[in-house]
Amino acid sequence: MNVSKNAAAARSETLHKIICQSDIDAVLFFNINNIRYLTGFTGSEAMLIAGKNEALLFVDGRYITQAGKQVKNAAVIEFKDKAVIIADTIKKNGLKKIGLEAAAISLQFYHQLIKKIPAKFFRTLGDELKLLRAVKDENEIKLMKKAAVISSAAVLSLADKIKAGVMERDLALEFEFNVRRAGAEQLSFATIIAAGENSALPHAQPSGRKIKKGDLIVIDFGVKYQGYCSDETCTFAFGGLTDKQRNAYQAVKEAHDLAIAGVQAGVSAAAIDLHARDVLRKNKLDRYFVHSTGHGVGMDVHEPPRLAENSPDVLDKGMVITIEPGVYFAGQWGIRIEDMVLVKNNGCEILSKLDKELTVIE
Amino acid sequence: MNVSKNAAAARSETLHKIICQSDIDAVLFFNINNIRYLTGFTGSEAMLIAGKNEALLFVDGRYITQAGKQVKNAAVIEFKDKAVIIADTIKKNGLKKIGLEAAAISLQFYHQLIKKIPAKFFRTLGDELKLLRAVKDENEIKLMKKAAVISSAAVLSLADKIKAGVMERDLALEFEFNVRRAGAEQLSFATIIAAGENSALPHAQPSGRKIKKGDLIVIDFGVKYQGYCSDETCTFAFGGLTDKQRNAYQAVKEAHDLAIAGVQAGVSAAAIDLHARDVLRKNKLDRYFVHSTGHGVGMDVHEPPRLAENSPDVLDKGMVITIEPGVYFAGQWGIRIEDMVLVKNNGCEILSKLDKELTVIE
Repeated sequence: MNVSKNAAAARSETLHKIICQSDIDAVLFFNINNIRYLTGFTGSEAMLIAGKNEALLFVDGRYITQAGKQVKNAAVIEFKDKAVIIADTIKKNGLKKIGLEAAAISLQFYHQLIKKIPAKFFRTLGDELKLLRAVKDENEIKLMKKAAVISSAAVLSLADKIKAGVMERDLALEFEFNVRRAGAEQLSFATIIAAGENSALPHAQPSGRKIKKGDLIVIDFGVKYQGYCSDETCTFAFGGLTDKQRNAYQAVKEAHDLAIAGVQAGVSAAAIDLHARDVLRKNKLDRYFVHSTGHGVGMDVHEPPRLAENSPDVLDKGMVITIEPGVYFAGQWGIRIEDMVLVKNNGCEILSKLDKELTVIE
Repeated sequence: MNVSKNAAAARSETLHKIICQSDIDAVLFFNINNIRYLTGFTGSEAMLIAGKNEALLFVDGRYITQAGKQVKNAAVIEFKDKAVIIADTIKKNGLKKIGLEAAAISLQFYHQLIKKIPAKFFRTLGDELKLLRAVKDENEIKLMKKAAVISSAAVLSLADKIKAGVMERDLALEFEFNVRRAGAEQLSFATIIAAGENSALPHAQPSGRKIKKGDLIVIDFGVKYQGYCSDETCTFAFGGLTDKQRNAYQAVKEAHDLAIAGVQAGVSAAAIDLHARDVLRKNKLDRYFVHSTGHGVGMDVHEPPRLAENSPDVLDKGMVITIEPGVYFAGQWGIRIEDMVLVKNNGCEILSKLDKELTVIE
């Protein structure tokens, strides 16, 4: 990933605001995606101390060369012992109030740290950092579009392979090979391919179950492209549907469409969840909708904001979110329809590529 | 994974010992591999409170059915809020001294917890848990052998594809497809395929660099099979070698062989590291050996014990470890030779399958 000069400036500004609002001198980051976001470093492990005006990136011997090439806006420092280098840096720079990324630091490391620096020097940060990466810039959106295209295309070609007797897990493997050949570095999550009674499990794992006539097949899929995720779900019907299934599909589709129609900057995330839930309620299906309507997507496939009944989040221009209502009849079948959309000032743009009209595979 | 009755009893006994020695009532586990080891649960997220005589496994709605099927030695409880259920359970069971798996618990969760239960109720555990999974039982060894066979076979067939002009990353992808088709659920780590100057980087990532005559090619690879990892490294010569390279290969091979010859139960891990280092010292190559000699392997590809100069660990029967000396000439070339071995009472058994004599691909 290249973080352009403009993007780096915008990200620094967001961080600067967080530092000022939290009344601290600097933040100590451990979350590798936050570190990649702020510096451009793509290794698997690092620490970052980011202050108002300067930043220090700590890597071990493996990553010195790579970090030197990738990182322009932070000094790169090699460490042997994490706690030692962080304590030394805090002392040397006279930092008095250091914000800790509490979700990403282990209790073990924290205990090592406070043996060297008194606990009163640290503030734990949680919600303050929640939306750091929520608003995407132009380049991030470009990468997410590319991830969406790769994964949508792979499922489109997968639809040809859906035949009676094919196993869920073989289809999942086929999808993975396809997206890897197309340049995705990895899946953004373990692909769900769930047929028949398995489609009733929102987080089913692809199994040896064979596709058969009359199955609904839920395919929830996504890939990572240059660090950025896609996330989309199709439900295909293999052979015929019952009237109940057809009606449920139309209800979920309407919930999906109305929720998407409601997306724009300034709207509360809870309101979007309510749109979807209301449609299903009218169809007496709301009690089968057992999860929330969606979530942010970016470097993580699940990141803030949350589109749920109790979410305090507000949609902002540049956020990328999923809209994914579903209904699940335990032991029988399930339906989920999901698109990934980009929030705009007067609406949204759908980034995932597959049409969500009912597709019956004969 | 099926945890057999005998295995479950042995694992409980080990845990029982840790609980008694640490003078606590129970351990709160977050590390998903430790939880899988102790209960057989294969989901991606859970918490486990394990006491001297009973254990409680906490999962969210996704995993209730699966956990119910997989777990025989713990009660399965659904949670909505992690901190709430843990606090309630501690109170309800009158637990007074709870050991925390400090490396796996975030500072954020710890803070949520001590809002509900005073901090004095908790002890942080670190080294006490280090060797919990280090000694493998019969079934674990069977799975690791299978992982080793799958990955060795894939590299053997990959050797046929090594030709001038082929890119490192295409070979890596080919390896991955091959092992997935053979039944591995995933790689145990991102495959290293590093040719020419890239072989001088111990943790190189496969790139667009094309193989050419005169390259040394380091291939460090492993897969996960039913939760258990393999880890092996070959260095192939493509075309001829210089005398310096040939001599270095023989020195690394001798270091590897002598270290393996030293492996048996009761020997200190540091002594094995010393064997390898001594051979390289005699060949004036020790300053190019920039990492330690090996590590334990199991559900994690890197786990205790550590085979390093300063390691306090002692080898025990049933441990599975790597022996992987290497030399690296920055900007030029590198060599690493690695086998995964099972520690026995009077020696060891090599689990990885490829012969480590110098292989020149013409």
